[in-house]
Amino acid sequence: MKNITYIEDFAKWRNEFMFYIPIHVRFSETDMFGHVNNTSAFIYFEQARIEFFKDRGLFTNFNDPEINGVPVVADLQCDFHKQMYFDEKIKLYVKANSIGKTSLDLHYLATNENDDVCLTGRGRIVYMNRHTGKPKPLTSDIKQKLMN
Amino acid sequence: MKNITYIEDFAKWRNEFMFYIPIHVRFSETDMFGHVNNTSAFIYFEQARIEFFKDRGLFTNFNDPEINGVPVVADLQCDFHKQMYFDEKIKLYVKANSIGKTSLDLHYLATNENDDVCLTGRGRIVYMNRHTGKPKPLTSDIKQKLMN
Amino acid sequence: MKNITYIEDFAKWRNEFMFYIPIHVRFSETDMFGHVNNTSAFIYFEQARIEFFKDRGLFTNFNDPEINGVPVVADLQCDFHKQMYFDEKIKLYVKANSIGKTSLDLHYLATNENDDVCLTGRGRIVYMNRHTGKPKPLTSDIKQKLMN
Amino acid sequence: MKNITYIEDFAKWRNEFMFYIPIHVRFSETDMFGHVNNTSAFIYFEQARIEFFKDRGLFTNFNDPEINGVPVVADLQCDFHKQMYFDEKIKLYVKANSIGKTSLDLHYLATNENDDVCLTGRGRIVYMNRHTGKPKPLTSDIKQKLMN
Repeated sequence: MKNITYIEDFAKWRNEFMFYIPIHVRFSETDMFGHVNNTSAFIYFEQARIEFFKDRGLFTNFNDPEINGVPVVADLQCDFHKQMYFDEKIKLYVKANSIGKTSLDLHYLATNENDDVCLTGRGRIVYMNRHTGKPKPLTSDIKQKLMN
Repeated sequence: MKNITYIEDFAKWRNEFMFYIPIHVRFSETDMFGHVNNTSAFIYFEQARIEFFKDRGLFTNFNDPEINGVPVVADLQCDFHKQMYFDEKIKLYVKANSIGKTSLDLHYLATNENDDVCLTGRGRIVYMNRHTGKPKPLTSDIKQKLMN
Repeated sequence: MKNITYIEDFAKWRNEFMFYIPIHVRFSETDMFGHVNNTSAFIYFEQARIEFFKDRGLFTNFNDPEINGVPVVADLQCDFHKQMYFDEKIKLYVKANSIGKTSLDLHYLATNENDDVCLTGRGRIVYMNRHTGKPKPLTSDIKQKLMN
Repeated sequence: MKNITYIEDFAKWRNEFMFYIPIHVRFSETDMFGHVNNTSAFIYFEQARIEFFKDRGLFTNFNDPEINGVPVVADLQCDFHKQMYFDEKIKLYVKANSIGKTSLDLHYLATNENDDVCLTGRGRIVYMNRHTGKPKPLTSDIKQKLMN
């Protein structure tokens, strides 16, 4: 594993993932180089993130105007370790790596059927008031659900 | 040109196109077969359709809640005549081929730099009341702008 | 069901589908109108088509240069009956509706969790010699597998 | 401008960009939140990167089997500063921020028509031998073209 700033101890880091979604690589996600296009990694991250939140019972009612706190992507980062190919079955892991006052850091790991590490990544999510566009504090209930 | 149900006389049909948008094929739009993925054709059609309407001064305020008439895609159809490749510069033509009471038929043509026909297509657009979800009559003003 | 040229008797047509893939609508597949973007329908069709062929043991070795017969999309057509939304679980059905000498017609049907028909569609696949780019006859073995 | 690890002095950093491509935001690139989906940022980065290399006369013959050196994306990173919307005209800037022995760091900046900073980003490109999959030294000719 090459040196990655957001991973201190890879074995420990990897071991902390408890949740993943299966991704079945689609033909349309490949490019003329014969493997999955780089941009698809972030589609996979987004889907994993949403399912992770749903699994924790968080942020499930995006369409409810009563709910004014929404998770917003502040940044995204991905390291490409191994190419992924059409028809591969990928496991896309996600975890809350750290939780702050108004934001949290999600970390991502993608492995293929040989258990090779294909992608690692991270990104900060800010909890925002959708009406004011300002960060708002993560409640203790939200923090509790994220840490479970 | 193979037989296509929506084109009677190809030379005449082609000659009626007056509007096009340039499309520069992106790397991410290719697939592992080395050419543009089939699904990208419909992204190009959508973009051409929107620019065509804008050019006619139609349907430009999608976000204005006061405006209750919106164009909705009822169907789409595409014939693939020649592969398109990364970095090619495509002309994507669009025209209103026929205009009915509450809907219109848009036709599409894509050509490459050698003037080869890559795609032909069509699709019906229904003019809908966004609040009721029911078709509403195209005004004479809209019809006039479409026929210009 | 509105009038659709490629469907004679809808109940009979629908009843003939034996194979489907599940599609879980991704967030990135929606657009600013709040539902699934039209172009995603064709990504779903492509994935269903590939899985259908795989299920029949057909066209599974795209990367084997020894295999010179490949399925090529000649045209695609989709009718949009009902909007699909983020997080919906869609069944995407596919069947070989008719089989010719060098091509076949695939038909598609998408239903949501309420069993509403969201999409119907079709498209011709030509069996091509990848080296000459010419259509080649579908073998009786291929035809047999398609009709199962 | 929030704190970003890869930017020391924002004014200086921004001033060094000499090359950009125009991006016209497509309808299909939005999502149900009403703005550009996060994953589209990386499609824009890819297109800017390819055009930048082409502008420098580099890596233009991806399909030539004689050419064994290819640029491979090792990592990608993006900070989202301001939402982008349908129909906006974005300038996507790219520059070679640093050049190493076998790799280089590209930096990215996206601004809208009000000159607001929408995205900043970076990513390392490794120059690889496509046959061995091993990094190979950037020639002085390549370095020269990158620094122009």
